[in-house]
Amino acid sequence: MVYQLHYWPSIQGRGEFVRLALEAAGASYVDVARGDASNGQGLPALFHCLQDESVARPPFACPVLVDGKRMIGQTAAILLYLGPRLKLVATSEADRVWTHQIQLTIADAVDEAHNTHHPVGAGLYYEDQKREAARAAKEFRTQRIPKFLGWLETVLARNPKGDKHLVGARLSYADLSLFQLVAGLRYAFPKATQRVLMKTPLVLGLHERVSQHHRVAAYVRSERRIPFNEEGIFRHYAELDG
Amino acid sequence: MVYQLHYWPSIQGRGEFVRLALEAAGASYVDVARGDASNGQGLPALFHCLQDESVARPPFACPVLVDGKRMIGQTAAILLYLGPRLKLVATSEADRVWTHQIQLTIADAVDEAHNTHHPVGAGLYYEDQKREAARAAKEFRTQRIPKFLGWLETVLARNPKGDKHLVGARLSYADLSLFQLVAGLRYAFPKATQRVLMKTPLVLGLHERVSQHHRVAAYVRSERRIPFNEEGIFRHYAELDG
Repeated sequence: MVYQLHYWPSIQGRGEFVRLALEAAGASYVDVARGDASNGQGLPALFHCLQDESVARPPFACPVLVDGKRMIGQTAAILLYLGPRLKLVATSEADRVWTHQIQLTIADAVDEAHNTHHPVGAGLYYEDQKREAARAAKEFRTQRIPKFLGWLETVLARNPKGDKHLVGARLSYADLSLFQLVAGLRYAFPKATQRVLMKTPLVLGLHERVSQHHRVAAYVRSERRIPFNEEGIFRHYAELDG
Repeated sequence: MVYQLHYWPSIQGRGEFVRLALEAAGASYVDVARGDASNGQGLPALFHCLQDESVARPPFACPVLVDGKRMIGQTAAILLYLGPRLKLVATSEADRVWTHQIQLTIADAVDEAHNTHHPVGAGLYYEDQKREAARAAKEFRTQRIPKFLGWLETVLARNPKGDKHLVGARLSYADLSLFQLVAGLRYAFPKATQRVLMKTPLVLGLHERVSQHHRVAAYVRSERRIPFNEEGIFRHYAELDG
Protein backbone atom coordinates (compact mmCIF):
# COMPACT_ATOMS: atom_id res chain seq x y z
CA MET A 1 0.00 0.00 0.00
CA VAL A 2 1.33 3.42 -0.93
CA TYR A 3 0.63 6.04 1.72
CA GLN A 4 -0.56 9.46 0.66
CA LEU A 5 0.67 12.45 2.64
CA HIS A 6 -1.23 15.68 2.22
CA TYR A 7 0.70 18.71 3.37
CA TRP A 8 1.68 22.18 2.18
CA PRO A 9 4.14 21.71 -0.66
CA SER A 10 6.57 24.53 0.09
CA ILE A 11 7.36 24.11 3.78
CA GLN A 12 8.64 21.43 6.13
CA GLY A 13 6.14 22.42 8.79
CA ARG A 14 4.39 19.80 10.86
CA GLY A 15 4.27 17.52 7.85
CA GLU A 16 8.01 17.03 8.15
CA PHE A 17 7.59 14.84 11.24
CA VAL A 18 5.51 12.50 9.09
CA ARG A 19 7.84 12.72 6.11
CA LEU A 20 10.79 11.77 8.31
CA ALA A 21 9.02 8.70 9.67
CA LEU A 22 8.03 7.53 6.19
CA GLU A 23 11.54 8.20 4.82
CA ALA A 24 13.40 6.60 7.72
CA ALA A 25 11.31 3.46 7.33
CA GLY A 26 11.72 3.36 3.58
CA ALA A 27 7.94 3.41 3.16
CA SER A 28 6.30 4.04 -0.19
CA TYR A 29 4.44 7.31 -0.13
CA VAL A 30 3.30 10.15 -2.32
CA ASP A 31 3.72 13.71 -1.09
CA VAL A 32 0.51 14.60 -2.85
CA ALA A 33 0.55 18.39 -2.94
CA ARG A 34 4.05 18.39 -4.42
CA GLY A 35 2.87 16.34 -7.38
CA ASP A 36 1.43 17.52 -10.64
CA ALA A 37 -2.15 18.72 -10.81
CA SER A 38 -2.45 17.09 -14.21
CA ASN A 39 -1.93 13.76 -12.44
CA GLY A 40 -4.62 14.50 -9.90
CA GLN A 41 -2.09 15.74 -7.39
CA GLY A 42 -0.84 19.21 -6.46
CA LEU A 43 -2.66 21.77 -4.36
CA PRO A 44 -6.09 20.96 -5.82
CA ALA A 45 -5.78 17.45 -4.38
CA LEU A 46 -4.75 18.88 -1.00
CA PHE A 47 -7.72 21.23 -0.91
CA HIS A 48 -10.04 18.47 -2.00
CA CYS A 49 -8.75 16.32 0.86
CA LEU A 50 -9.41 19.11 3.38
CA GLN A 51 -12.82 20.06 2.01
CA ASP A 52 -14.30 16.79 0.78
CA GLU A 53 -17.83 16.71 2.17
CA SER A 54 -18.12 12.98 1.61
CA VAL A 55 -15.50 12.25 4.28
CA ALA A 56 -17.13 10.99 7.47
CA ARG A 57 -14.09 11.83 9.58
CA PRO A 58 -12.75 15.11 8.22
CA PRO A 59 -9.39 16.49 9.30
CA PHE A 60 -9.22 19.92 10.92
CA ALA A 61 -6.01 20.78 9.06
CA CYS A 62 -3.08 19.13 7.36
CA PRO A 63 -0.92 17.09 7.62
CA VAL A 64 -3.30 14.32 6.65
CA LEU A 65 -2.28 10.75 5.99
CA VAL A 66 -4.40 8.64 3.68
CA ASP A 67 -3.96 4.88 3.94
CA GLY A 68 -6.49 3.22 1.68
CA LYS A 69 -9.86 4.22 3.06
CA ARG A 70 -8.38 5.64 6.25
CA MET A 71 -7.78 9.36 6.58
CA ILE A 72 -5.92 10.59 9.65
CA GLY A 73 -5.11 14.11 10.74
CA GLN A 74 -3.03 15.58 13.57
CA THR A 75 0.71 14.93 13.36
CA ALA A 76 0.93 13.00 16.63
CA ALA A 77 -2.10 10.87 15.76
CA ILE A 78 -0.54 10.05 12.38
CA LEU A 79 2.65 8.94 14.12
CA LEU A 80 0.63 6.94 16.64
CA TYR A 81 -0.93 5.14 13.67
CA LEU A 82 2.24 4.77 11.61
CA GLY A 83 4.58 3.83 14.45
CA PRO A 84 3.75 0.13 14.63
CA ARG A 85 3.32 -0.18 10.86
CA LEU A 86 6.74 1.36 10.15
CA LYS A 87 8.38 -0.40 13.11
CA LEU A 88 9.23 2.99 14.58
CA VAL A 89 7.87 2.23 18.02
CA ALA A 90 8.31 -0.64 20.46
CA THR A 91 5.59 -3.24 20.90
CA SER A 92 4.62 -2.86 24.57
CA GLU A 93 1.80 -0.52 25.49
CA ALA A 94 4.01 1.16 28.09
CA ASP A 95 6.67 1.96 25.50
CA ARG A 96 4.09 3.17 23.00
CA VAL A 97 2.44 5.56 25.43
CA TRP A 98 5.84 6.85 26.55
CA THR A 99 6.95 7.40 22.95
CA HIS A 100 3.72 9.29 22.35
CA GLN A 101 4.20 11.34 25.50
CA ILE A 102 7.61 12.43 24.21
CA GLN A 103 6.14 13.22 20.80
CA LEU A 104 3.45 15.40 22.35
CA THR A 105 6.07 17.28 24.37
CA ILE A 106 8.13 17.88 21.23
CA ALA A 107 4.92 19.07 19.54
CA ASP A 108 4.47 21.58 22.36
CA ALA A 109 7.98 22.88 21.70
CA VAL A 110 7.16 23.17 18.00
CA ASP A 111 3.97 25.09 18.76
CA GLU A 112 5.90 27.48 20.97
CA ALA A 113 8.56 27.96 18.29
CA HIS A 114 5.82 28.92 15.85
CA ASN A 115 4.33 31.26 18.40
CA THR A 116 7.55 33.29 18.56
CA HIS A 117 6.91 34.79 15.14
CA HIS A 118 3.11 34.74 15.35
CA PRO A 119 2.28 35.52 18.99
CA VAL A 120 -0.83 37.50 18.12
CA GLY A 121 -2.22 34.98 15.69
CA ALA A 122 -1.46 32.86 12.68
CA GLY A 123 -3.89 34.91 10.61
CA LEU A 124 -1.67 38.00 10.63
CA TYR A 125 1.69 38.52 8.95
CA TYR A 126 4.90 38.52 10.97
CA GLU A 127 5.47 42.10 9.88
CA ASP A 128 2.27 43.06 11.69
CA GLN A 129 3.38 41.60 15.00
CA LYS A 130 7.12 42.18 15.12
CA ARG A 131 7.07 44.00 18.42
CA GLU A 132 5.13 41.19 20.08
CA ALA A 133 7.36 38.60 18.40
CA ALA A 134 10.49 40.15 19.87
CA ARG A 135 9.12 39.73 23.37
CA ALA A 136 7.84 36.22 22.74
CA ALA A 137 11.13 35.12 21.20
CA LYS A 138 13.13 36.34 24.18
CA GLU A 139 11.01 34.25 26.53
CA PHE A 140 11.30 31.25 24.23
CA ARG A 141 15.08 31.56 23.81
CA THR A 142 15.94 32.12 27.43
CA GLN A 143 13.36 29.95 29.19
CA ARG A 144 11.76 27.44 26.89
CA ILE A 145 14.55 26.11 24.64
CA PRO A 146 16.65 25.26 27.72
CA LYS A 147 13.64 23.65 29.40
CA PHE A 148 12.61 21.50 26.44
CA LEU A 149 16.11 20.38 25.44
CA GLY A 150 17.03 19.92 29.09
CA TRP A 151 14.08 17.59 29.55
CA LEU A 152 15.06 15.57 26.48
CA GLU A 153 18.60 15.34 27.86
CA THR A 154 17.20 13.94 31.10
CA VAL A 155 15.06 11.44 29.21
CA LEU A 156 18.15 10.19 27.36
CA ALA A 157 20.28 10.11 30.49
CA ARG A 158 17.70 8.07 32.40
CA ASN A 159 16.84 5.60 29.65
CA PRO A 160 17.60 2.23 31.26
CA LYS A 161 18.52 0.84 27.84
CA GLY A 162 21.18 3.49 27.29
CA ASP A 163 21.42 7.08 26.20
CA LYS A 164 21.50 6.50 22.46
CA HIS A 165 17.71 6.55 21.98
CA LEU A 166 14.80 8.22 23.73
CA VAL A 167 12.90 4.95 24.18
CA GLY A 168 14.56 1.57 24.54
CA ALA A 169 17.53 0.67 22.36
CA ARG A 170 16.04 1.22 18.90
CA LEU A 171 15.12 4.10 16.66
CA SER A 172 11.60 5.42 17.25
CA TYR A 173 9.59 8.21 15.69
CA ALA A 174 10.36 10.25 18.82
CA ASP A 175 14.07 10.13 17.92
CA LEU A 176 13.25 11.37 14.42
CA SER A 177 11.16 14.17 15.88
CA LEU A 178 14.01 15.16 18.20
CA PHE A 179 16.23 15.37 15.13
CA GLN A 180 13.75 17.69 13.45
CA LEU A 181 13.20 19.84 16.53
CA VAL A 182 16.94 20.42 16.92
CA ALA A 183 17.36 21.08 13.19
CA GLY A 184 14.56 23.61 13.30
CA LEU A 185 15.77 25.37 16.42
CA ARG A 186 19.29 25.58 14.99
CA TYR A 187 17.90 27.15 11.83
CA ALA A 188 15.64 29.63 13.58
CA PHE A 189 17.69 30.50 16.65
CA PRO A 190 21.27 29.45 15.87
CA LYS A 191 22.96 31.41 18.64
CA ALA A 192 20.52 30.59 21.39
CA THR A 193 20.27 26.94 20.41
CA GLN A 194 24.03 26.48 20.21
CA ARG A 195 24.38 27.74 23.75
CA VAL A 196 21.84 25.20 24.99
CA LEU A 197 23.22 22.30 22.96
CA MET A 198 26.61 22.76 24.60
CA LYS A 199 24.85 21.72 27.81
CA THR A 200 22.82 18.90 26.28
CA PRO A 201 25.41 16.61 24.67
CA LEU A 202 23.11 13.59 24.58
CA VAL A 203 20.49 15.53 22.62
CA LEU A 204 23.14 16.77 20.23
CA GLY A 205 24.54 13.26 19.89
CA LEU A 206 21.16 11.75 19.05
CA HIS A 207 20.48 14.53 16.56
CA GLU A 208 23.77 13.77 14.83
CA ARG A 209 23.25 10.01 14.80
CA VAL A 210 19.80 10.40 13.27
CA SER A 211 21.27 12.74 10.66
CA GLN A 212 23.66 9.93 9.71
CA HIS A 213 20.97 7.24 9.51
CA HIS A 214 21.37 6.06 5.92
CA ARG A 215 17.82 6.70 4.80
CA VAL A 216 17.48 9.96 6.72
CA ALA A 217 20.82 11.18 5.33
CA ALA A 218 19.76 10.30 1.78
CA TYR A 219 16.44 12.06 2.28
CA VAL A 220 17.98 15.22 3.71
CA ARG A 221 20.37 15.39 0.73
CA SER A 222 17.55 14.86 -1.76
CA GLU A 223 15.24 17.42 -3.28
CA ARG A 224 12.41 15.74 -1.42
CA ARG A 225 13.60 17.63 1.67
CA ILE A 226 12.25 21.16 1.38
CA PRO A 227 14.77 23.68 2.73
CA PHE A 228 13.86 25.64 5.83
CA ASN A 229 12.36 28.98 4.89
CA GLU A 230 10.45 31.91 6.31
CA GLU A 231 7.03 30.48 5.50
CA GLY A 232 7.32 27.50 7.82
CA ILE A 233 7.28 26.92 11.56
CA PHE A 234 10.99 27.44 12.15
CA ARG A 235 11.90 30.82 10.67
CA HIS A 236 15.20 32.60 10.90
CA TYR A 237 14.62 36.22 11.69
CA ALA A 238 17.97 37.43 12.96
CA GLU A 239 16.29 39.95 15.22
CA LEU A 240 14.59 37.14 17.14
CA ASP A 241 17.80 35.26 17.92
CA GLY A 242 20.36 36.50 20.40
CA MET B 1 -6.25 0.19 41.81
CA VAL B 2 -6.67 3.82 42.82
CA TYR B 3 -5.33 6.25 40.24
CA GLN B 4 -3.32 9.23 41.40
CA LEU B 5 -3.74 12.48 39.51
CA HIS B 6 -1.07 15.10 40.00
CA TYR B 7 -2.17 18.57 38.95
CA TRP B 8 -2.24 22.12 40.25
CA PRO B 9 -4.75 22.20 43.10
CA SER B 10 -6.38 25.56 42.44
CA ILE B 11 -7.24 25.49 38.74
CA GLN B 12 -9.15 23.30 36.32
CA GLY B 13 -6.46 23.68 33.67
CA ARG B 14 -5.43 20.77 31.52
CA GLY B 15 -5.92 18.44 34.46
CA GLU B 16 -9.67 18.93 34.15
CA PHE B 17 -9.79 16.80 31.01
CA VAL B 18 -8.39 13.94 33.07
CA ARG B 19 -10.60 14.65 36.08
CA LEU B 20 -13.68 14.56 33.85
CA ALA B 21 -12.74 11.18 32.40
CA LEU B 22 -12.10 9.70 35.84
CA GLU B 23 -15.31 11.20 37.24
CA ALA B 24 -17.53 10.21 34.31
CA ALA B 25 -16.29 6.62 34.60
CA GLY B 26 -16.74 6.52 38.36
CA ALA B 27 -13.07 5.59 38.75
CA SER B 28 -11.33 5.69 42.11
CA TYR B 29 -8.70 8.39 42.16
CA VAL B 30 -6.88 10.76 44.41
CA ASP B 31 -6.38 14.37 43.30
CA VAL B 32 -3.05 14.34 45.08
CA ALA B 33 -2.12 18.02 45.27
CA ARG B 34 -5.52 18.87 46.76
CA GLY B 35 -4.90 16.50 49.67
CA ASP B 36 -3.23 17.20 52.95
CA ALA B 37 0.55 17.44 53.13
CA SER B 38 0.42 15.70 56.50
CA ASN B 39 -0.93 12.66 54.64
CA GLY B 40 1.87 12.75 52.10
CA GLN B 41 -0.26 14.67 49.62
CA GLY B 42 -0.58 18.37 48.80
CA LEU B 43 1.85 20.45 46.77
CA PRO B 44 4.95 18.74 48.20
CA ALA B 45 3.76 15.47 46.65
CA LEU B 46 3.14 17.22 43.32
CA PHE B 47 6.61 18.73 43.28
CA HIS B 48 8.14 15.44 44.29
CA CYS B 49 6.36 13.78 41.37
CA LEU B 50 7.72 16.37 38.94
CA GLN B 51 11.25 16.38 40.31
CA ASP B 52 11.84 12.81 41.44
CA GLU B 53 15.25 11.86 40.04
CA SER B 54 14.56 8.16 40.47
CA VAL B 55 11.86 8.21 37.79
CA ALA B 56 13.12 6.68 34.55
CA ARG B 57 10.39 8.32 32.48
CA PRO B 58 9.95 11.78 33.95
CA PRO B 59 7.04 14.01 32.91
CA PHE B 60 7.76 17.42 31.39
CA ALA B 61 4.89 19.01 33.29
CA CYS B 62 1.63 18.11 34.95
CA PRO B 63 -0.99 16.70 34.65
CA VAL B 64 0.60 13.38 35.53
CA LEU B 65 -1.31 10.17 36.10
CA VAL B 66 0.20 7.52 38.35
CA ASP B 67 -1.18 4.02 37.99
CA GLY B 68 0.82 1.70 40.19
CA LYS B 69 4.34 1.86 38.82
CA ARG B 70 3.29 3.70 35.67
CA MET B 71 3.67 7.45 35.45
CA ILE B 72 2.19 9.20 32.42
CA GLY B 73 2.31 12.85 31.44
CA GLN B 74 0.68 14.89 28.64
CA THR B 75 -3.10 15.19 28.84
CA ALA B 76 -3.79 13.49 25.53
CA ALA B 77 -1.41 10.61 26.32
CA ILE B 78 -3.14 10.13 29.68
CA LEU B 79 -6.50 9.92 27.93
CA LEU B 80 -5.05 7.55 25.35
CA TYR B 81 -4.02 5.32 28.26
CA LEU B 82 -7.18 5.71 30.32
CA GLY B 83 -9.67 5.49 27.46
CA PRO B 84 -9.82 1.69 27.17
CA ARG B 85 -9.49 1.19 30.93
CA LEU B 86 -12.41 3.52 31.69
CA LYS B 87 -14.44 2.34 28.70
CA LEU B 88 -14.40 5.86 27.33
CA VAL B 89 -13.25 4.87 23.86
CA ALA B 90 -14.40 2.30 21.33
CA THR B 91 -12.44 -0.90 20.79
CA SER B 92 -11.37 -0.67 17.14
CA GLU B 93 -8.04 0.90 16.28
CA ALA B 94 -9.75 3.16 13.74
CA ASP B 95 -12.13 4.54 16.36
CA ARG B 96 -9.33 4.95 18.88
CA VAL B 97 -7.12 6.93 16.53
CA TRP B 98 -10.07 9.07 15.46
CA THR B 99 -11.03 9.79 19.07
CA HIS B 100 -7.42 10.76 19.71
CA GLN B 101 -7.34 12.97 16.62
CA ILE B 102 -10.38 14.86 17.95
CA GLN B 103 -8.77 15.14 21.38
CA LEU B 104 -5.60 16.61 19.89
CA THR B 105 -7.65 19.15 17.94
CA ILE B 106 -9.50 20.16 21.10
CA ALA B 107 -6.10 20.44 22.81
CA ASP B 108 -5.02 22.84 20.06
CA ALA B 109 -8.09 24.97 20.77
CA VAL B 110 -7.23 24.93 24.48
CA ASP B 111 -3.66 26.01 23.76
CA GLU B 112 -4.91 28.87 21.64
CA ALA B 113 -7.38 29.93 24.32
CA HIS B 114 -4.49 30.09 26.78
CA ASN B 115 -2.45 32.05 24.29
CA THR B 116 -5.05 34.84 24.23
CA HIS B 117 -4.06 36.03 27.68
CA HIS B 118 -0.39 35.03 27.46
CA PRO B 119 0.62 35.67 23.85
CA VAL B 120 4.13 36.76 24.74
CA GLY B 121 4.82 33.91 27.11
CA ALA B 122 3.52 31.98 30.07
CA GLY B 123 6.37 33.26 32.20
CA LEU B 124 5.03 36.82 32.25
CA TYR B 125 1.91 38.14 33.96
CA TYR B 126 -1.19 39.01 31.96
CA GLU B 127 -0.84 42.59 33.15
CA ASP B 128 2.50 42.76 31.36
CA GLN B 129 1.07 41.72 27.99
CA LYS B 130 -2.41 43.24 27.91
CA ARG B 131 -1.88 45.07 24.64
CA GLU B 132 -0.71 41.89 22.92
CA ALA B 133 -3.51 39.92 24.54
CA ALA B 134 -6.15 42.25 23.12
CA ARG B 135 -4.92 41.60 19.59
CA ALA B 136 -4.57 37.85 20.12
CA ALA B 137 -8.04 37.58 21.63
CA LYS B 138 -9.65 39.37 18.71
CA GLU B 139 -8.13 36.87 16.28
CA PHE B 140 -9.17 33.97 18.51
CA ARG B 141 -12.75 35.24 18.94
CA THR B 142 -13.43 36.10 15.35
CA GLN B 143 -11.48 33.40 13.52
CA ARG B 144 -10.57 30.50 15.73
CA ILE B 145 -13.61 29.85 17.95
CA PRO B 146 -15.84 29.66 14.85
CA LYS B 147 -13.34 27.38 13.11
CA PHE B 148 -12.90 24.94 16.00
CA LEU B 149 -16.57 24.74 16.99
CA GLY B 150 -17.56 24.63 13.34
CA TRP B 151 -15.30 21.65 12.79
CA LEU B 152 -16.77 19.85 15.81
CA GLU B 153 -20.25 20.57 14.43
CA THR B 154 -19.23 18.96 11.15
CA VAL B 155 -17.81 15.94 12.95
CA LEU B 156 -21.12 15.46 14.77
CA ALA B 157 -23.20 16.03 11.65
CA ARG B 158 -21.21 13.45 9.68
CA ASN B 159 -21.01 10.76 12.36
CA PRO B 160 -22.60 7.74 10.66
CA LYS B 161 -23.86 6.54 14.04
CA GLY B 162 -25.76 9.75 14.67
CA ASP B 163 -25.08 13.26 15.86
CA LYS B 164 -25.33 12.62 19.59
CA HIS B 165 -21.65 11.68 20.05
CA LEU B 166 -18.40 12.61 18.34
CA VAL B 167 -17.40 8.97 17.78
CA GLY B 168 -19.87 6.14 17.34
CA ALA B 169 -22.97 5.96 19.51
CA ARG B 170 -21.40 6.01 22.97
CA LEU B 171 -19.79 8.50 25.30
CA SER B 172 -16.04 8.89 24.74
CA TYR B 173 -13.39 11.02 26.36
CA ALA B 174 -13.61 13.28 23.30
CA ASP B 175 -17.24 14.09 24.21
CA LEU B 176 -16.14 14.98 27.73
CA SER B 177 -13.40 17.20 26.35
CA LEU B 178 -15.89 18.96 24.07
CA PHE B 179 -18.01 19.63 27.15
CA GLN B 180 -15.02 21.18 28.89
CA LEU B 181 -13.93 23.21 25.87
CA VAL B 182 -17.40 24.73 25.51
CA ALA B 183 -17.65 25.36 29.26
CA GLY B 184 -14.30 27.11 29.22
CA LEU B 185 -15.02 29.20 26.15
CA ARG B 186 -18.37 30.26 27.60
CA TYR B 187 -16.65 31.34 30.79
CA ALA B 188 -13.82 33.20 29.11
CA PHE B 189 -15.58 34.66 26.07
CA PRO B 190 -19.31 34.53 26.85
CA LYS B 191 -20.44 36.93 24.14
CA ALA B 192 -18.27 35.59 21.35
CA THR B 193 -18.95 31.97 22.23
CA GLN B 194 -22.70 32.47 22.43
CA ARG B 195 -22.71 33.89 18.92
CA VAL B 196 -20.89 30.83 17.61
CA LEU B 197 -22.98 28.32 19.55
CA MET B 198 -26.13 29.67 17.93
CA LYS B 199 -24.69 28.32 14.69
CA THR B 200 -23.43 25.02 16.13
CA PRO B 201 -26.52 23.43 17.69
CA LEU B 202 -25.07 19.93 17.69
CA VAL B 203 -22.04 21.08 19.69
CA LEU B 204 -24.31 22.89 22.13
CA GLY B 205 -26.55 19.83 22.37
CA LEU B 206 -23.68 17.48 23.15
CA HIS B 207 -22.32 19.94 25.71
CA GLU B 208 -25.71 19.99 27.44
CA ARG B 209 -26.15 16.23 27.36
CA VAL B 210 -22.72 15.67 28.89
CA SER B 211 -23.54 18.24 31.57
CA GLN B 212 -26.58 16.12 32.45
CA HIS B 213 -24.68 12.82 32.59
CA HIS B 214 -25.37 11.67 36.13
CA ARG B 215 -21.78 11.34 37.25
CA VAL B 216 -20.61 14.48 35.43
CA ALA B 217 -23.53 16.46 36.85
CA ALA B 218 -22.76 15.24 40.37
CA TYR B 219 -19.11 16.11 39.91
CA VAL B 220 -19.77 19.60 38.58
CA ARG B 221 -22.05 20.29 41.57
CA SER B 222 -19.48 18.98 44.03
CA GLU B 223 -16.60 20.83 45.62
CA ARG B 224 -14.27 18.56 43.70
CA ARG B 225 -14.94 20.77 40.68
CA ILE B 226 -12.74 23.82 41.07
CA PRO B 227 -14.54 26.93 39.80
CA PHE B 228 -13.15 28.67 36.74
CA ASN B 229 -10.86 31.49 37.80
CA GLU B 230 -8.26 33.89 36.44
CA GLU B 231 -5.32 31.60 37.20
CA GLY B 232 -6.35 28.86 34.80
CA ILE B 233 -6.44 28.42 31.05
CA PHE B 234 -9.89 29.87 30.48
CA ARG B 235 -9.92 33.32 32.05
CA HIS B 236 -12.67 35.88 31.89
CA TYR B 237 -11.18 39.26 31.18
CA ALA B 238 -14.12 41.33 29.97
CA GLU B 239 -11.84 43.41 27.77
CA LEU B 240 -10.88 40.30 25.78
CA ASP B 241 -14.47 39.32 24.96
CA GLY B 242 -16.63 41.24 22.53
